[in-house]
Amino acid sequence: MQDSEDYTQKKAFFERVLTVYGRKPALEALRDPLLQCHALHLSSSNRGGGIITELLDAAAKKSIPVHEHSREALARISKNGKQDQGVALDILCPSFRSLQTYVEELPGLAPQRILALDGITNPQNLGMILRSAAAGHIDAVLWSSKGNAALGPLVIKASAGTLYRAPLVMCDSQVNALRRLAQQEVEICSLEANASQTLFEFTPKKHVAYVLGNETEGVSKDVVQLADKSLSIPMNNGVESLNVAVTASLIAFAGSLAKVR
Amino acid sequence: MQDSEDYTQKKAFFERVLTVYGRKPALEALRDPLLQCHALHLSSSNRGGGIITELLDAAAKKSIPVHEHSREALARISKNGKQDQGVALDILCPSFRSLQTYVEELPGLAPQRILALDGITNPQNLGMILRSAAAGHIDAVLWSSKGNAALGPLVIKASAGTLYRAPLVMCDSQVNALRRLAQQEVEICSLEANASQTLFEFTPKKHVAYVLGNETEGVSKDVVQLADKSLSIPMNNGVESLNVAVTASLIAFAGSLAKVR
Repeated sequence: MQDSEDYTQKKAFFERVLTVYGRKPALEALRDPLLQCHALHLSSSNRGGGIITELLDAAAKKSIPVHEHSREALARISKNGKQDQGVALDILCPSFRSLQTYVEELPGLAPQRILALDGITNPQNLGMILRSAAAGHIDAVLWSSKGNAALGPLVIKASAGTLYRAPLVMCDSQVNALRRLAQQEVEICSLEANASQTLFEFTPKKHVAYVLGNETEGVSKDVVQLADKSLSIPMNNGVESLNVAVTASLIAFAGSLAKVR
Repeated sequence: MQDSEDYTQKKAFFERVLTVYGRKPALEALRDPLLQCHALHLSSSNRGGGIITELLDAAAKKSIPVHEHSREALARISKNGKQDQGVALDILCPSFRSLQTYVEELPGLAPQRILALDGITNPQNLGMILRSAAAGHIDAVLWSSKGNAALGPLVIKASAGTLYRAPLVMCDSQVNALRRLAQQEVEICSLEANASQTLFEFTPKKHVAYVLGNETEGVSKDVVQLADKSLSIPMNNGVESLNVAVTASLIAFAGSLAKVR
């Protein structure tokens, strides 16, 4: 029983840890008073001084352990040996969850508004989506490691550091994840420029996942087949589509905007 | 009388002409069947063949004149000799107006929703703002040549080509333009992260100009002093600000989103 509880706690902890890499992103995160960092990892190949000293000072101020690794071991931790600059940092992101945890919690949750990301390959767009989702009314951002930009420095920058506060649900494959959610009373709605029903005419039955596709390719074929319906945003002046981060933001703030004329 | 009418017509025509530069932007615009192009300008220093031949073919298909100029003369037309690549194109943008024309028309117009751009220096953001303004419910985008990114290739690309359809009102100085609008029953509202009144609680009396400031500096001091009020967008999870193009998009679609739960 003790062991099982211990395992559950550890699991709950580790699925909330995001490992970021790069010297500047790590330093900015260490200096953010609101962020809970867990451990700083450095490559033994780093030269001392300069920003490495600043990183060590910032880690000491946050009272977090510093681990030294071989270049190869650090690359396994950062998962990006080419761009990690010999630095990785574990950050506790309280709103991150695995798909498994989220699915287990779902029956007890109030109606959920989910943003499902199906091919957001541009880090700028992904960062902006996370920033708007964190600021607005989104309960979960379903991010799959397959098909979307990695949660690296470009995304962190474009998110203005809000990635760490975003309600991220992590999965491997978007279509598999959506299949599981569909079994849990989640209505799957793909956003498509040519859909006849508009986002503004739609009221979800209970939980809803709005699926955003790639800017060029749109929502993938497998996901379209799975979707309960497709929704569009009506546009003026012959404009054919919106930036995907703008679409995400309109969904995220739909609740607040209900009062606007 | 004839002369005066002729002058007025010419003026109305020329304030709707945007001169774009660069080989690829010019070719894309020439190939867009919905765009009305007026003249193609080439530098005599261009070598023939390749994309120059494609430009000439596309101009012939649209039956528009091709003018050859010295490099220096072309630089005066493109207003960017360093980046024009020896190519400039005059495009008729039916929704463009000068501030003077807009102010004259204003008394006869239905309540206007204006987006005023006070320091949008990032071409990506400017392009996205124009795309959302064209697609959504914005009657005029007040763009000043001073303080904002130029309407060049980066903006055109980020706007996904919708710049040409945006309801742009051109002026030199944002603060001077807003002063003139304020005299015409336009309520000036600056968007600021710390404002106590929210965008969602606000109903304009008649015309309204929503002022968007620089992402780092915010709305400029002169404009803040001029503003009737400042408005914020309430945010969750300790997020301190939204991307400025996202803010613009929420304003642009506020009307449609009013129907969403």
